[in-house]
Amino acid sequence: MKFKKHVFICTNQKDAPKKSCGTEHGLALVEAFKQELTQRGLQKEIRAQRTGCLDACAFGPTLVVYPEGTYYGNVQLNDVSEIVESHLVNDQPVERLKLDF
Amino acid sequence: MKFKKHVFICTNQKDAPKKSCGTEHGLALVEAFKQELTQRGLQKEIRAQRTGCLDACAFGPTLVVYPEGTYYGNVQLNDVSEIVESHLVNDQPVERLKLDF
Repeated sequence: MKFKKHVFICTNQKDAPKKSCGTEHGLALVEAFKQELTQRGLQKEIRAQRTGCLDACAFGPTLVVYPEGTYYGNVQLNDVSEIVESHLVNDQPVERLKLDF
Repeated sequence: MKFKKHVFICTNQKDAPKKSCGTEHGLALVEAFKQELTQRGLQKEIRAQRTGCLDACAFGPTLVVYPEGTYYGNVQLNDVSEIVESHLVNDQPVERLKLDF
């Protein structure tokens, strides 16, 4: 396993009026995760990156954390620190944001 | 786990002369995987999608299969059927294409 945790954040953009993660700050989330991981010196073991559609558009902005396959929905910029600290560092998923897949 | 297997294929494009998966048929690979999975009726349980840089540019085109976190490099269009059949369906990674991460 190249990375201890690998976070894929949807930045897909669909034409209005369809909701999509890309129009809902998906790319800003990618940057926020990268910044948080770099600040903590974790960027070599934990990777966050943009991805295409995760097939959960209605719950966007969405992301998935592997290897466990945990999906999160309606993720806001101020949720990033909590996801990093609780889930990525301490293996405790953030229950209030988890999608029931 | 929303998907039994989740394949992330790099389609990142860098300016020449840097090698990158996007310029090396990354997007064509995404389409080939999607087509193969649909033909086999597996598109609900196995997902293949584009993603950003997987941090393995030198080995591109690259992809990673989760939940196991297996990286593949130098993947060609005529490798897609074998990866689907051997790894995604039968859980036998394709050793000749695996990256040693």
